[in-house]
Amino acid sequence: MATHKLLLLPGDGIGPEVMAQVETVVSWFEKRGLAGFAIEKGLVGGCAYDAHKQAISEGDMKLAQDADAVLFGAVGGPKWADVPYQHRPEAGLLRLRKDLGLFANLRPAICYPALASASSLKPEVVEGLDILIVRELTGGVYFGEPKEIVTLEDGSKRGVDTQVYTTPEIDRICRVAFELARTRRNKVSSAEKHNVMKTGVLWKQTVTALHAKDYSDVELEHVLADNCAMQLVRWPKQYDVIVTDNLFGDILSDVAAMLTGSLGMLPSASLGAEDAATGKRKALYEPVHGSAPDIAGKGLANPIAMIGSFAMALRYSFGAIEAADRLEGAIADVLGSGTRTKDIAAPGTNAVSTSEMGAAIVKAL
Amino acid sequence: MATHKLLLLPGDGIGPEVMAQVETVVSWFEKRGLAGFAIEKGLVGGCAYDAHKQAISEGDMKLAQDADAVLFGAVGGPKWADVPYQHRPEAGLLRLRKDLGLFANLRPAICYPALASASSLKPEVVEGLDILIVRELTGGVYFGEPKEIVTLEDGSKRGVDTQVYTTPEIDRICRVAFELARTRRNKVSSAEKHNVMKTGVLWKQTVTALHAKDYSDVELEHVLADNCAMQLVRWPKQYDVIVTDNLFGDILSDVAAMLTGSLGMLPSASLGAEDAATGKRKALYEPVHGSAPDIAGKGLANPIAMIGSFAMALRYSFGAIEAADRLEGAIADVLGSGTRTKDIAAPGTNAVSTSEMGAAIVKAL
Ligand SMILES: CC(C)[C@H](C(=O)O)[C@@H](O)C(=O)O
Ligand SMILES: CC(C)[C@H](C(=O)O)[C@@H](O)C(=O)O
Repeated sequence: MATHKLLLLPGDGIGPEVMAQVETVVSWFEKRGLAGFAIEKGLVGGCAYDAHKQAISEGDMKLAQDADAVLFGAVGGPKWADVPYQHRPEAGLLRLRKDLGLFANLRPAICYPALASASSLKPEVVEGLDILIVRELTGGVYFGEPKEIVTLEDGSKRGVDTQVYTTPEIDRICRVAFELARTRRNKVSSAEKHNVMKTGVLWKQTVTALHAKDYSDVELEHVLADNCAMQLVRWPKQYDVIVTDNLFGDILSDVAAMLTGSLGMLPSASLGAEDAATGKRKALYEPVHGSAPDIAGKGLANPIAMIGSFAMALRYSFGAIEAADRLEGAIADVLGSGTRTKDIAAPGTNAVSTSEMGAAIVKAL
Repeated sequence: MATHKLLLLPGDGIGPEVMAQVETVVSWFEKRGLAGFAIEKGLVGGCAYDAHKQAISEGDMKLAQDADAVLFGAVGGPKWADVPYQHRPEAGLLRLRKDLGLFANLRPAICYPALASASSLKPEVVEGLDILIVRELTGGVYFGEPKEIVTLEDGSKRGVDTQVYTTPEIDRICRVAFELARTRRNKVSSAEKHNVMKTGVLWKQTVTALHAKDYSDVELEHVLADNCAMQLVRWPKQYDVIVTDNLFGDILSDVAAMLTGSLGMLPSASLGAEDAATGKRKALYEPVHGSAPDIAGKGLANPIAMIGSFAMALRYSFGAIEAADRLEGAIADVLGSGTRTKDIAAPGTNAVSTSEMGAAIVKAL
């Protein structure tokens, strides 16, 4: 049995609480001899700044580079509102994404049938929804230079951010989208603003050429990012896989997640390129939700997104498809049986705590 | 009675049909001696390219510069998919915005009670919704330089767009938002991504300083743009005025419009700075919907957004508040009486044509 190197970075807010539930799941798999893990733990975000004056230490970056997969909780909170910009909690996450080369962010937006009524949308609009946003994660306006604030002669200031994309960067993320579409409903919607942005023009040209060359069996449609946001609200079921850049992906994946009524439940995977020699790819798994400082430490957080992120790690990093299916099945069973944390419980009904939800999932395994 | 110089730019697709209904409304006001207009007409978008090989001619730009208000229909369609980039239909609109200095785009998102059921959201989420998006319209990634695609040594290409904002640009748009909030529910939500973008950092600093200096009576909240998109879907009634940059405003205003179920019904105003000498400001009014080439020429289009845009012109450009109230009241009455174009008619019920809707509104005046 292979031993998988797993780095846990619980982070801030509810991060540690939900990560603790993953640890109980990991133990279950280990005790039954179904998988072996070598587990390390590190700090990221505000807690890392408190310890090292850095949003992630060099030592923890080294552990992340060596890990087969990183599990990331959440970062940030009002406590760190005034730390210097380069050390803000998010900087730890952005550095992990960039330095590990995690260019492909997969964000499934699935409406769990048991939770369709929790959505602000009408049930018929979201029931059965299953879309996948493939977001470019290491380029675009997040990392382009210049990125600066300068003071002008008259004392006013000018801020600049630069959105940069090259054809190889667009090519590789669109390849991921086409490959995944083939395992699903075989449709890719590419979202950009080619009517306003040159990176959008290049994006549209590149995905069109790639489609013609290698993926003409997959349906490809082009959609303007603003229209895509609208269409997600109007009739999201028209989509299968949406591929888009870092900034549009940030917004569109949040809209898609919110549609499902399952915001506290959605996992995500961020993957690097396959190493030609080993066939391995670096990977980080994190819930779509944030650090929710308002409910931290109260046992109210829903651990399903974090546990679901571990299921994605089993699937994409460890090739443990059966274990992943089993874990996702356990989550569905527990939801089917009516067990609810507060975020997804109907008003006036009973809710279980974070650890009770974790225990229920382990029991259902 | 003052004579107002009005330039009509119907554009492409359904633009001319909906603009024709505005003309019947204009005649009504003129015949009753309630307002005087000197009307010019011009071409913009694909039709302008067909006529002049330019998305707007120099002559029509001159008319726009001279007008007290421009009424703009919609531009674009598949016919012009392959025109050179600098002449694409949208270029006409972008040039109007930039050259007229229309930095303040006001996009109300109002859920007409009679139409709440047309939304994909649950009625309780959208009933009574009345929010206003104030979008910066002449800066940001739409116009920053460099904005280019270059071919690299290895044959690959690199696309670049540049988001630039200066403190005076941020200041003046946020001022508009605070002033409007004072006439409404006195709350401004400022949306940016200061956790990732330097323009976001500058935006947040600038609005915070302006608030402390001149608008501390107005409630100000900061929200990350991705979270704002989510919150618009979850519980939009938490907002009053949202102020944001050009690109985020493009997306957030489309999401807000779609929530209301009234997409074909929403007007917008784009305003320039007040001229110190004359007290006048340049202005362009346009529906939020696009050119809808699929239904163009069939009498199916809903003219309400275009007529509502004229009502905004009466209010903001001509100071004809009573006339504006009267026109908006007529629209509400017609909707209240159950008259519906196809886009807002319940399935299986009767719908009126574009011109029948226009006539009904004139009759209700
Ligand atoms: C925390 C923040 C830097 C991040 C982003 O903007 O990418 C978050 O919103 C996300 O989507 O993962
Ligand atoms: C047509 C296009 C250039 C425009 C924009 O991106 O601003 C449109 O989407 C809008 O919102 O008015």
